[in-house]
Amino acid sequence: MITLCYAKGTAALAPHILLEEAGADYTARLVDFSAAEQQSPDYLAINPKGRVPALITEQGTLTETPAILAYIAQVFPAARLAPTDPFFFAEAQAFNLYLAATVHVNHAHKQRGARWTDDAAAQEKMREKVPANMTDCARIIEQHYLKGPWVMGEAYSMCDPYLFVITRWMKVDGVNLDDFPALSAHFSAMQDRPAVQKVMQLHS
Amino acid sequence: MITLCYAKGTAALAPHILLEEAGADYTARLVDFSAAEQQSPDYLAINPKGRVPALITEQGTLTETPAILAYIAQVFPAARLAPTDPFFFAEAQAFNLYLAATVHVNHAHKQRGARWTDDAAAQEKMREKVPANMTDCARIIEQHYLKGPWVMGEAYSMCDPYLFVITRWMKVDGVNLDDFPALSAHFSAMQDRPAVQKVMQLHS
Ligand SMILES: N[C@@H](CCC(=O)N[C@@H](CS)C(=O)NCC(=O)O)C(=O)O
Ligand SMILES: N[C@@H](CCC(=O)N[C@@H](CS)C(=O)NCC(=O)O)C(=O)O
Repeated sequence: MITLCYAKGTAALAPHILLEEAGADYTARLVDFSAAEQQSPDYLAINPKGRVPALITEQGTLTETPAILAYIAQVFPAARLAPTDPFFFAEAQAFNLYLAATVHVNHAHKQRGARWTDDAAAQEKMREKVPANMTDCARIIEQHYLKGPWVMGEAYSMCDPYLFVITRWMKVDGVNLDDFPALSAHFSAMQDRPAVQKVMQLHS
Repeated sequence: MITLCYAKGTAALAPHILLEEAGADYTARLVDFSAAEQQSPDYLAINPKGRVPALITEQGTLTETPAILAYIAQVFPAARLAPTDPFFFAEAQAFNLYLAATVHVNHAHKQRGARWTDDAAAQEKMREKVPANMTDCARIIEQHYLKGPWVMGEAYSMCDPYLFVITRWMKVDGVNLDDFPALSAHFSAMQDRPAVQKVMQLHS
């Protein structure tokens, strides 16, 4: 049995959707950010980094969204959620890595600026650049990486739920999705999937 | 034939070392940051994100350090540079992901603050927190993730050259390595490897 530790609307939404798509037998455990539960001793014993997602498996606990997504794809091979050829697997990973190390990080400068400075005025300055940075990321994804209709082309993969989460953030971060037709079409197609509709009940 | 696009002392040093350890037939192509070559039209055609590393293969170009590291491990399986069991592979990936999405990002707030704000005073404020943030990361790695002697335990893997690069940055970012004996021992053990000594001639 697998347990996913999640908080609503966070990066954990991506593996949550992927577990559904894989037909996995799993439990979802809500980590209450409003009570700072991610910093509680119990949760830090699960993930010393104090973040979600974390995936508790029989072999141990995994963290980091792209690593968890690739793990789900690999342990449910019948669902074909990642390419198996090393080059195309690396290409899918590189997409997820860009989301994790660049786009998620840009987004975090809106609400989590205290990670990088304790100065309130500097945090406010960082917040001001978030819409422009997220719009740049949307353009790079639209022009270079979203093959369409799914991220990797014809085959739905571990990249799609992650892009869905990031696109949700882009919308609230001031990106005008009308400027990005491929991204908009991807977002709509994701909303039509039963797995997404089911999981969103726990995330809204 | 594989071509690695690199700049000296950057994250590209990690796949550069791993290619040597794998015994790969490859070319290293220097991207001249002092001439802003990463923003030249030629280089943006290789990597539209304007960053290194990028790995040019016969199947196409890969970006993002952890994705490139896993690719090298997978196409040179005889070198045993990554676990093959999905859980342990994911654990190794999670380690590299933490370096990419948290530690590298914290480090980037020292010289690359303009990514997140155009305000010089705010950039200076971000710079001030870098030593404390990098020290926190060193503590998390030392206490929770570096199994020793290598990152994944007895087996040298794709995580080790990447940690070596990050440890080099920690030293110049004001982390006192004497406080982290396991990290220090790892750094020394890396410096003793012939692959590291060979590649460092191009990076110093
Ligand atoms: N690099 C990690 C980042 C995880 C992360 O930052 N998660 C956020 C939610 S989206 C979190 O747990 N924040 C809680 C906090 O900062 O206290 C990943 O990709 O999984
Ligand atoms: N997420 C990327 C980040 C790559 C990155 O930021 N590389 C730096 C060098 S360490 C770079 O190319 N900087 C050039 C620039 O910012 O103009 C990865 O992990 O490969």
